[in-house]
Amino acid sequence: MTSAATQQDTPGEAAPAGRIEFRVSPDRYRHWRLCCDGPVATLVMDVDEQGGLVPGYELKLNSYDLGVDIELYDAVQRLRFEHPEVRAVVITSGKPKIFCAGANIRMLAASPHGWKVNFCKFTNETRNGIEDATANSGQTYLAAVNGTASGGGYELALACEHIMLIDDRSSAVSLPELPLLGVLPGTGGLTRVSDKRHVRRDLADYFSTKAEGVGGKKAVQWRLVDEAVPRPKWDETVAERAAELAARSSRPGNAEGVALTPLAKTGDDHLITYDHVEARLDRDAGEVDISVKGPQNDPPASIAEAREQGAAFWPLAVTRELDDLILDLRTNETELGTWVFRTQGDPAKVLAYDELVLTSANTGDWFANEVLHYLKRTLRRLDVTSRSLIAVIEPGSCFAGSLLELALAADRSFQLAGVFEAVDPNTGDPDAEPATITLGDINVGPLTMSNGLTRLQTRFWGDEAGYEAATKRTKEALEAEDAADLGLITFAPDDIDWDEEIRIATEERASFSPDALTGLEANYRFAGPETMETKIFGRLSAWQNWIFNRPNAAGPDGALRRFGTGQRAVFDRKRV
Amino acid sequence: MTSAATQQDTPGEAAPAGRIEFRVSPDRYRHWRLCCDGPVATLVMDVDEQGGLVPGYELKLNSYDLGVDIELYDAVQRLRFEHPEVRAVVITSGKPKIFCAGANIRMLAASPHGWKVNFCKFTNETRNGIEDATANSGQTYLAAVNGTASGGGYELALACEHIMLIDDRSSAVSLPELPLLGVLPGTGGLTRVSDKRHVRRDLADYFSTKAEGVGGKKAVQWRLVDEAVPRPKWDETVAERAAELAARSSRPGNAEGVALTPLAKTGDDHLITYDHVEARLDRDAGEVDISVKGPQNDPPASIAEAREQGAAFWPLAVTRELDDLILDLRTNETELGTWVFRTQGDPAKVLAYDELVLTSANTGDWFANEVLHYLKRTLRRLDVTSRSLIAVIEPGSCFAGSLLELALAADRSFQLAGVFEAVDPNTGDPDAEPATITLGDINVGPLTMSNGLTRLQTRFWGDEAGYEAATKRTKEALEAEDAADLGLITFAPDDIDWDEEIRIATEERASFSPDALTGLEANYRFAGPETMETKIFGRLSAWQNWIFNRPNAAGPDGALRRFGTGQRAVFDRKRV
Repeated sequence: MTSAATQQDTPGEAAPAGRIEFRVSPDRYRHWRLCCDGPVATLVMDVDEQGGLVPGYELKLNSYDLGVDIELYDAVQRLRFEHPEVRAVVITSGKPKIFCAGANIRMLAASPHGWKVNFCKFTNETRNGIEDATANSGQTYLAAVNGTASGGGYELALACEHIMLIDDRSSAVSLPELPLLGVLPGTGGLTRVSDKRHVRRDLADYFSTKAEGVGGKKAVQWRLVDEAVPRPKWDETVAERAAELAARSSRPGNAEGVALTPLAKTGDDHLITYDHVEARLDRDAGEVDISVKGPQNDPPASIAEAREQGAAFWPLAVTRELDDLILDLRTNETELGTWVFRTQGDPAKVLAYDELVLTSANTGDWFANEVLHYLKRTLRRLDVTSRSLIAVIEPGSCFAGSLLELALAADRSFQLAGVFEAVDPNTGDPDAEPATITLGDINVGPLTMSNGLTRLQTRFWGDEAGYEAATKRTKEALEAEDAADLGLITFAPDDIDWDEEIRIATEERASFSPDALTGLEANYRFAGPETMETKIFGRLSAWQNWIFNRPNAAGPDGALRRFGTGQRAVFDRKRV
Repeated sequence: MTSAATQQDTPGEAAPAGRIEFRVSPDRYRHWRLCCDGPVATLVMDVDEQGGLVPGYELKLNSYDLGVDIELYDAVQRLRFEHPEVRAVVITSGKPKIFCAGANIRMLAASPHGWKVNFCKFTNETRNGIEDATANSGQTYLAAVNGTASGGGYELALACEHIMLIDDRSSAVSLPELPLLGVLPGTGGLTRVSDKRHVRRDLADYFSTKAEGVGGKKAVQWRLVDEAVPRPKWDETVAERAAELAARSSRPGNAEGVALTPLAKTGDDHLITYDHVEARLDRDAGEVDISVKGPQNDPPASIAEAREQGAAFWPLAVTRELDDLILDLRTNETELGTWVFRTQGDPAKVLAYDELVLTSANTGDWFANEVLHYLKRTLRRLDVTSRSLIAVIEPGSCFAGSLLELALAADRSFQLAGVFEAVDPNTGDPDAEPATITLGDINVGPLTMSNGLTRLQTRFWGDEAGYEAATKRTKEALEAEDAADLGLITFAPDDIDWDEEIRIATEERASFSPDALTGLEANYRFAGPETMETKIFGRLSAWQNWIFNRPNAAGPDGALRRFGTGQRAVFDRKRV
């Protein structure tokens, strides 16, 4: 949030003054404690009331803002990479009688619309990450709800595989957003209640209108939690359940973790650089030019050697840099509406690294598995990013395998047919060879989108022949005409039209309504089946965006603004 | 739209003065001509520029407003019931060089937010109805696009099974909403482009940003249309295609249609009555009390006799009345946010009628098939209605089979345990018997929701045991305790708590944010899988609602308001 809120986007009192930073580490946590004890880790939420990211609100009752969630995201990531021994993660509260009160309401009430939406997107991704750890990493999350969990607090529990609620006649789970604030739960609550926990729709409806929530046996009966445990048996039962969940895991007992060392990042108002990724911010054009470097060297001979390289291992390093850049730009550069991706390097080396990761993950190596799923999650972040994505494929680029996913994630791609005329073909310069793209094995399997399909499957949804024809050419370097014929890129201009076509595409994009682009992209990027994750991002979030933007919530007399003032909201009663 | 637009819902210049009426018939059409010629019917769109429903705009270039679409809906319905001989329906334009320019932009720009959303909902339902006729009625729709089809014009074509575009170097199909108006296509366009026609996502993206659209061979190559036909061969090819589509149908060649005679409807500001349905409008409570009467008599002995009863046949009559009431209330009574359903009559008679319809439809009777699918579509209308639905099951009611679907569609249901104490048990009065509900065969098959599941399957999504236990009790009259135990109703209060519980439920509902209720219900009503239809109503419409509501579209400087003024829109460039 670099600019003051405009008239269109009030209220805006809670926009932070500086740039939001996503890099954090456990020694700097203000809100969480991460304790590892053999196969069981415990994440204790103990929010510092005075630790809000933006002045103007106190984080009472373990309520959270983006800063609290950035730490949670960091912890979830580190558990996967730095703690191969951890097989179960208990999320619990360090405060008496309250598990978590959800997103801070004063923060929400004072935040501009775009901030709220971006905040919800990130918290959703973190909770999806918790489910991904449970599903794909053998780190099963357990919510030990040792006090009331309301709103986002209950939604955090919903992201866990098993929910235990303390049975003390006062603790309850609730989704009070509708009755108290006139909005929807913003972190997947409704979808998980109906589609994950299979709470019957009429009970779910009733539950979501009861501000005080449901506790004890009824919460179990209605499937809102898995068990209600009396206080005297609490600690013992939590430990028992955690041990049971840990026992289901196949994570290695004695492996060494990989430290997620601080990212080398420098930045000013026009340029953000990492080791392998660079972003030029063009404020006049409303555009970011992102360049990703392929690996300089051949991959290590084995995954064990790769693990020794640790955070410097190219696939991990480049993924972390992309991840951080996406989060940074989404949060801090909301007016740069188009991201243009380029790559530089040797496609063969990218494919060789991919191969090492893929074969090692397939044969059960935990580290390779983590790298692969991290890349998957990072690419999914791109899919739900409300920016126009354009891939530009030029000579010297390495859109192959994992990096080709950037082009497949893009809304459009351009590949140069032939070479630039100015380049002397006899220099041996890599630019003297035509640009190619190369499909690798990694493109046809593990890097699924949130709809459960690969980007390639989604691209050819309903066109099986097209999919077959394209995948038959795996590992072949495809020049522009071939790539276009196979439907793998959008346009293949030659040198004469190149600059003009790309200029028109980006300028045109910058001239359109940013909101309409967001809606268009959110629809076209996800053909085919829907999953809980696409429902959360596509259906639930869209409704939430709308409600957040309505005067009944965000207007001066709306429920969100009036909460806690002692005044009741005034609603326009028309149903829309 | 009974009240003037409030500050919250501006702009509102185009709200009609009177009540919108959905009852129409071909002799009164102003915008369409319906010509039947044996197995092929032709629907010619020839919009009367001066025939807008609301003053303030002209319906130029075959653009449409709600009034135009009400006639289209009527025609689609009548083709199914009144024309069993029609097997293919050609939609074409009566104007030179233009097929249809879509929803009228001045109308949209001047309409209040709620009006736009309700308008899109109805037009979506009509296009879904066109697809339903193609899929389930043997009436296949063919779009004969004899001029440019832009926006909603192309979306109308997209609802047809086969799209022919005239190849004359000027006619094109387009979705210019994003580049010209800063909104999304509102009638399923994006979803049908990607999920029905399988246009590749990057081509779809490009197409949807080109105001002038795509025509000729490229439109075929990109799958936007099925064929491009030169003008000299146009008439002949259209006739040929229509004949081919008609040949696929199994509709009877020589059956007599059933006339959809005018509905007997009376109404004032507090009461709307039909033969079998009555709605009391309680403006103070913000509530409509809807009462549905079961059949008075036993069903006719055969479906042939039923067809002789024509529009008076109870299942058809009650469905038509419900359909009209839903449309009327949605459009004209936006401040009545809760609909409470009651029924009165003999459950056995309802089940007997259901049985006749169901067995006849299953053995191929066209009329029974139409009645069944019409009931299905009408119940689907209820599912996507942005009103809270409550079913109240009292002694003397007949929530059985088809009418039980009203309770299953409701967000909550209440069934009285026992009888009202004031009723003398010895009178033989039907009220002296406890209320029951009864599942029939009709509840476990044909009446699917737009997610492809029955309401019962959706209710028990993820709870197979619950589904088995409930369906095992088919045809059994279930009193409140049993129904509650089986999860078929929400609450079973007795006489002592009855009035209080229902009063609290409805009063509470009236106190909540109408927008948040809309979002909550749109999410909880559709557990489980998604289809094109749920995507259109849940994902696409939610994004469209949001965009419609944003200053970038609807603000004084927004694209929708500025279109045609010669001034460019001014956008807040922040991406959300």
